[in-house]
Amino acid sequence: MVSSSSSSSSSQPLTAKTIAKAAKTAFEASQLIPSAERVNALHEIRKELEHAKEGILAANRRDLEAAQHEVESGRMSSTLLKRLDLNKGDKWDSMLQGISDVANLPDPTGVVSYASELDDDLELYRVSCPIGVLLVIFEARPEVVVNIAALAIKSGNAAILKGGKESNETAQQLSTAIQTALFKTSLPSTYIQSIQTRAEVSSLLDLDQYIDLVIPRGSNSLVRSIQNNTRIPVMGHADGLCSVYLDESADISKAIRVVIDSKTDYPAACNSAETLIIHRSLLQTIWPAVAEALVTADVQLLCDAASLSTVSAHSPPIPKLASHVHPVTPSAYMTEHLSLTMSVLTVDSLQAAMTHINAHSSHHTDSIVTELDAAASTFCRGVDSAGTFVNASTRFADGFRYGFGTEVGISTGRIHARGPVGLEGLATYKYMLRSKGEKGHIAGEFGSGEGQKKYKHAPIQATSVPF
Amino acid sequence: MVSSSSSSSSSQPLTAKTIAKAAKTAFEASQLIPSAERVNALHEIRKELEHAKEGILAANRRDLEAAQHEVESGRMSSTLLKRLDLNKGDKWDSMLQGISDVANLPDPTGVVSYASELDDDLELYRVSCPIGVLLVIFEARPEVVVNIAALAIKSGNAAILKGGKESNETAQQLSTAIQTALFKTSLPSTYIQSIQTRAEVSSLLDLDQYIDLVIPRGSNSLVRSIQNNTRIPVMGHADGLCSVYLDESADISKAIRVVIDSKTDYPAACNSAETLIIHRSLLQTIWPAVAEALVTADVQLLCDAASLSTVSAHSPPIPKLASHVHPVTPSAYMTEHLSLTMSVLTVDSLQAAMTHINAHSSHHTDSIVTELDAAASTFCRGVDSAGTFVNASTRFADGFRYGFGTEVGISTGRIHARGPVGLEGLATYKYMLRSKGEKGHIAGEFGSGEGQKKYKHAPIQATSVPF
Repeated sequence: MVSSSSSSSSSQPLTAKTIAKAAKTAFEASQLIPSAERVNALHEIRKELEHAKEGILAANRRDLEAAQHEVESGRMSSTLLKRLDLNKGDKWDSMLQGISDVANLPDPTGVVSYASELDDDLELYRVSCPIGVLLVIFEARPEVVVNIAALAIKSGNAAILKGGKESNETAQQLSTAIQTALFKTSLPSTYIQSIQTRAEVSSLLDLDQYIDLVIPRGSNSLVRSIQNNTRIPVMGHADGLCSVYLDESADISKAIRVVIDSKTDYPAACNSAETLIIHRSLLQTIWPAVAEALVTADVQLLCDAASLSTVSAHSPPIPKLASHVHPVTPSAYMTEHLSLTMSVLTVDSLQAAMTHINAHSSHHTDSIVTELDAAASTFCRGVDSAGTFVNASTRFADGFRYGFGTEVGISTGRIHARGPVGLEGLATYKYMLRSKGEKGHIAGEFGSGEGQKKYKHAPIQATSVPF
Repeated sequence: MVSSSSSSSSSQPLTAKTIAKAAKTAFEASQLIPSAERVNALHEIRKELEHAKEGILAANRRDLEAAQHEVESGRMSSTLLKRLDLNKGDKWDSMLQGISDVANLPDPTGVVSYASELDDDLELYRVSCPIGVLLVIFEARPEVVVNIAALAIKSGNAAILKGGKESNETAQQLSTAIQTALFKTSLPSTYIQSIQTRAEVSSLLDLDQYIDLVIPRGSNSLVRSIQNNTRIPVMGHADGLCSVYLDESADISKAIRVVIDSKTDYPAACNSAETLIIHRSLLQTIWPAVAEALVTADVQLLCDAASLSTVSAHSPPIPKLASHVHPVTPSAYMTEHLSLTMSVLTVDSLQAAMTHINAHSSHHTDSIVTELDAAASTFCRGVDSAGTFVNASTRFADGFRYGFGTEVGISTGRIHARGPVGLEGLATYKYMLRSKGEKGHIAGEFGSGEGQKKYKHAPIQATSVPF
């Protein structure tokens, strides 16, 4: 990985245009390098990271200490701090395993998805290939450096990475390790580059002739500001406003398990549920038990009038009522709490629940708890979200859990890739057309007129391009 | 089809927001209508168009007469005029046939492309579905109204259409016919809407909460201005700067046929060749014959020094030399002539040709004429364009010719759809996850820890979602 400052022969940092041009050149050159070499690069990167683990975690601790001060002085949210810790739980191991998982995934490029004989000796192949140059911008979550580098390399894309200043020391160490590993391969050294400043980012966002896709990972404001300041396609999500709907036919134990897991398993994650929607018929039956489970799990409930009155009047009294149950304000239904807070809405029908979700959710992931197949089918088709779940926690919306090996992010857009994005999301395709005819092939010979050729459009069975 | 003016109960035209909201509502409602009803709507539309043919062509003649005046007074290009004639060649019949072809294509929605058992009784399905609301903006080419309406309806997308003022009378007649047909179906009447003014377009470009994809079809300036003025994804192409490269090993008759067809079959089309790239070794052999064929076909040649001198010095003299062969200027290699003009460049190698194409072409379609498999393979992989052809005319880059039944446009972007875009380009996908487990499924039970569940990720063989 080449850093914009360190790789420059002069003492001046490289300009954004130089970086972007170098990335595009590296991408074009890499198209004729066998994909096996890209897999080799991934193995080298994992080896180098294991080798450099101690130094990387030390840098991460320094970032965490600095961040702790920011939080204490109110300049950083504790949510961001949580995402910064590379040593939390199995984060480090997952990061390394992600590299091997990606290396072991099938090559997403060179795969034929459409092949047709347009005429005798005229063969058309639609074949998957890399997109080009990726610009990836993220806040905390330093492991993203490694995730993205692995995905970009495996899929044959060049990448320019910009981490958040709060994870700067960690990202620098990770970048250095990746660079060290890349130099042991035949891939261009500018294949993966890193930049440090926001000024570089805003310059890069203008360079749509060199950069093909921007992937922002971070806060709503980060993603929005990028979407508003570039003509380059942007893949990602601004909000993760997920909801769980308890249908008329919901089973009480499934309802409690799914709601509690969706809300409390990892409240800072984008696939955590922010809104609970309850069918009115459940207010006296399932709702009090669900509410008790939530407040017992220390969740703050923002309730509409109906859900508030039933839970307030419930006997025996719901614990922590005064401290944990409050009236909702309309804006709460459009708020990504990212904490142990949940908005509650009562509806009269499945249709009303779908209408609310389509109007208020971020089209990320929404789940229904129901015992009726018809309700499940209607919800899954009628809710316009990347993920529509039945009796399952919204927390399953994740590239690892879906089986992609790792994830480049979660897209709430509908173009190109939607939902958790794995390797396939970093591939596009191109059409290769070859004439094997003695005279080559020209379009003017085809038509509906007298003596003109007709197209055959005969399917060809092929998994790869035969030339 | 609902017009923004005619459908309003008041005398005021509908606001852009009202139109966009109605489209989104129509889209959401349509998700629970069986796709067979969408096919039925297409048959109704074809019937209605045949019924209304006379009036539509009369309106088209009025548009053509008005356009003729614009051309004579220099306010419109003759290129635009050519695209306006709905009665030209087999345009009308192709338009109708396109509807039936689309109706007969497989349903692009409801198709499972990935299915995995994440755990016992926890099944994940990635299933194709419509994108949502399309905003399609085009200049001449009134038949686009019908193409787009057919594609949108078949793929389950709602659409808002804006034609050029120069095809206004034709578009109005086509829109009325489509509206008449739609009212005979159970699809929402606001499923396909049309707007008339640029003011409405610019308002709609701000409404990314309702509109999911913008498809501009028209001039470079139209597409650029739209790309620059919306956060909504844009699918299409600004330029069609295609090239033909004559490789060292090119066969002379293939070279002449492919170059002549690529340049002259339909010069106003985006898939016509604008640049001819010649390997230096062909200057004395194949080039003079190719040049003679081109000038004989009345093509103006803009030549670099090497190709100019050899063709000028050739004996016997090339005809029309003085009138048809001129020195090139660098900007010509970045110009989409859209007429019988061709830029000519001499290169020393296949790599030099690929470098020039990647730097100057619009990544649309580029063709190599060669007898060597190795050169063909290198060109197809090394040229970063939507179409890379071997011994075939660039004019084959077309949705009909590729076998898609019709085309929504040609995309030079790499995101979502690339090259000629058919029905698949108007579909996205969503993930449906269903737990059939007795207790539902929660993410907290999975992990690498003691006693935690591991994911199965066992492939499921399914072509459609079983619930």
